[in-house]
Amino acid sequence: MHRSRLVGILIDTPAEDADAAADFWSAALGATPYPAPDEEQFTVLQGAVPGLLTVVQSVDGPPRYHLDIETDDLEAEVARLTALGAEPVSQWKEAHTLRAPGGHIFCVVPVHSPAETFASKAQTWP
Amino acid sequence: MHRSRLVGILIDTPAEDADAAADFWSAALGATPYPAPDEEQFTVLQGAVPGLLTVVQSVDGPPRYHLDIETDDLEAEVARLTALGAEPVSQWKEAHTLRAPGGHIFCVVPVHSPAETFASKAQTWP
Repeated sequence: MHRSRLVGILIDTPAEDADAAADFWSAALGATPYPAPDEEQFTVLQGAVPGLLTVVQSVDGPPRYHLDIETDDLEAEVARLTALGAEPVSQWKEAHTLRAPGGHIFCVVPVHSPAETFASKAQTWP
Repeated sequence: MHRSRLVGILIDTPAEDADAAADFWSAALGATPYPAPDEEQFTVLQGAVPGLLTVVQSVDGPPRYHLDIETDDLEAEVARLTALGAEPVSQWKEAHTLRAPGGHIFCVVPVHSPAETFASKAQTWP
């Protein structure tokens, strides 16, 4: 058995616009922008949605949103989602990028919520 | 004064793939797919994220995600967000589509959460 849950909305933004996007989204959603320590491409919008990470990510590429699913077993979760029809696209460190039926990109990542949040909100898969 | 909050994640999917996307996302997130009455383009994924609507929308166009902000005063909220740098793109019925700094599309829509949810979770703007 393993567990997973939808953990975040990523607002992927071309690098030259990332600061403006972080300013806009934090003001728009009434959230506090919080640069992630040691991962300067991420600005977390604290409090935008309770229980869900909302993050502006600076990227080399066009603007897009993507979703992150966190799990306590990367291999089992990727296997579960590919069995449901997702296609593996790429892997960077421990983040697996997949494409859902319909064409949407999403990532499967290790648990990074607080342990009690993950324990109370994740679903368990056989 | 008016109020608003981030209310939903829309998984906009080309019409021919919308059923497959709804099947995938409901299984992936452990949510129950619920076709919206009288709005057959929407399939709500019940329970995907507490307090946030997660919806597969059948569209004429490429796959993308977008975010919805609900408000009790459309005119005031669109004015607030454009003052923060968003650009109006289009309007359909009461849904206003805007483009954020950085390029992301989002919509401003009337309140459609239950009244107590909106009252407890929305932010108030002067």
